[in-house]
Amino acid sequence: MINTLIRISYDGTNYSGFQIQDNAPTVQGELERALAVVYKQHLRICGSGRTDAGVHARGQAASYRAPFRIDEEKLPHALNALLPPDIVVTGAVEVADDFHARFSARRKVYSYTIDRAAYPQVMKRLYSFHLPDALDMKAIEKAADLFTGTHDFKAFRAAGSLMTETTRTLYRVQLKEKPAEQLLAIYYEGSGFLYRMARLITGTIIRVGLGRLELTDVEAALDGKNSEAAGPTVPAYGLCLEKVHYDNLVQ
Amino acid sequence: MINTLIRISYDGTNYSGFQIQDNAPTVQGELERALAVVYKQHLRICGSGRTDAGVHARGQAASYRAPFRIDEEKLPHALNALLPPDIVVTGAVEVADDFHARFSARRKVYSYTIDRAAYPQVMKRLYSFHLPDALDMKAIEKAADLFTGTHDFKAFRAAGSLMTETTRTLYRVQLKEKPAEQLLAIYYEGSGFLYRMARLITGTIIRVGLGRLELTDVEAALDGKNSEAAGPTVPAYGLCLEKVHYDNLVQ
Repeated sequence: MINTLIRISYDGTNYSGFQIQDNAPTVQGELERALAVVYKQHLRICGSGRTDAGVHARGQAASYRAPFRIDEEKLPHALNALLPPDIVVTGAVEVADDFHARFSARRKVYSYTIDRAAYPQVMKRLYSFHLPDALDMKAIEKAADLFTGTHDFKAFRAAGSLMTETTRTLYRVQLKEKPAEQLLAIYYEGSGFLYRMARLITGTIIRVGLGRLELTDVEAALDGKNSEAAGPTVPAYGLCLEKVHYDNLVQ
Repeated sequence: MINTLIRISYDGTNYSGFQIQDNAPTVQGELERALAVVYKQHLRICGSGRTDAGVHARGQAASYRAPFRIDEEKLPHALNALLPPDIVVTGAVEVADDFHARFSARRKVYSYTIDRAAYPQVMKRLYSFHLPDALDMKAIEKAADLFTGTHDFKAFRAAGSLMTETTRTLYRVQLKEKPAEQLLAIYYEGSGFLYRMARLITGTIIRVGLGRLELTDVEAALDGKNSEAAGPTVPAYGLCLEKVHYDNLVQ
């Protein structure tokens, strides 16, 4: 069996998330449908992780075991010809037999995009959260810095999450202002993310920027002393999985 | 009657163009529906010009005569609350009684966006034409320069156009490379545009960049000597009406 890693970008607007479900359109469902045509049999793919309904990806990754080899240059084109236009495979590479898109993932990068224009920018509306209100950028930078590093993020996961080990490391929480586009993006690079963690952290940082939350409240939430300070969750459509990093793979 | 100019942005994907039609969704139709709610009577609006099905706008303009005054700050919000999310009014201003969005327009700016990534960028797919092929940028710049100035553009209008006066002035044909986004945009600023002129010029410039057309062929087309050299028309979804300029109005 040929263990294969594919890189996938998608517009999550019309999907009920990445992970396959009965009776709902999913990215995994579309990918498996296309793979079944190419390989003439059903293959199960493993994503690097789920993304929620409406969340986008420029660099999702998934692996599957194929019954025969297809040229790495040709495979994306073959799949893209079968996929809907809002899902695009951007690369394929044969990987070691013990590689697994989820368990072998070392770091992930998410972005959250905020539209700062006075009125929503129509061509950005599906990919950014419109927030024209004044933001204290100095306070936002300080809040972002608080999240960087290794913390117990148990206050920053959605209710109902079953994960018991809640310590994660964020290597980078970076603000990128794009004045020409009237956008503000926050990039998160981490060892792993709890359920809705990126959206809850974003909601917290925004509340600090709006002057509705103090930095000391954020610190208390990160110490596990005040889970009320976390969030709220910002809309899914501002979030994008930018990249999944693996060891020993050409990125 | 209060003569009012509104500025409008829209994602043209789901519309059969700007101009109202029976039995087809149009931007004008949606605007008139929202205005009828706000003013409690049907009002006819005049756009600065049509845009084709699928063409977008960041800065379309339209005017209408209203039976009463609504605060210029509040009007866009009132309309946006009634409009679908892919149409956003970004400004309103009271104008002189003889102002007309079409006849008073002095200059228009269009952009055409080309996606240069190896695979289509999913989040740009509705707003750019995917063309990963190698382009000779020096030749493209020279072709763009040929179009600048006052010319008889009769070779650069769609068949069936009834306009007999075909001389127009392009004040600016400007290439903007956006390497971080893997986009190439061409901006056209002109006194007026013939039917499909921006898309036909773009198609011509691209053919030069691909090495399929010589600059001398472009010159011949601009001299009216070789209308075969013009075009082809590139897809509507890469085109965006960026701005309509008027005299004596705060831009």
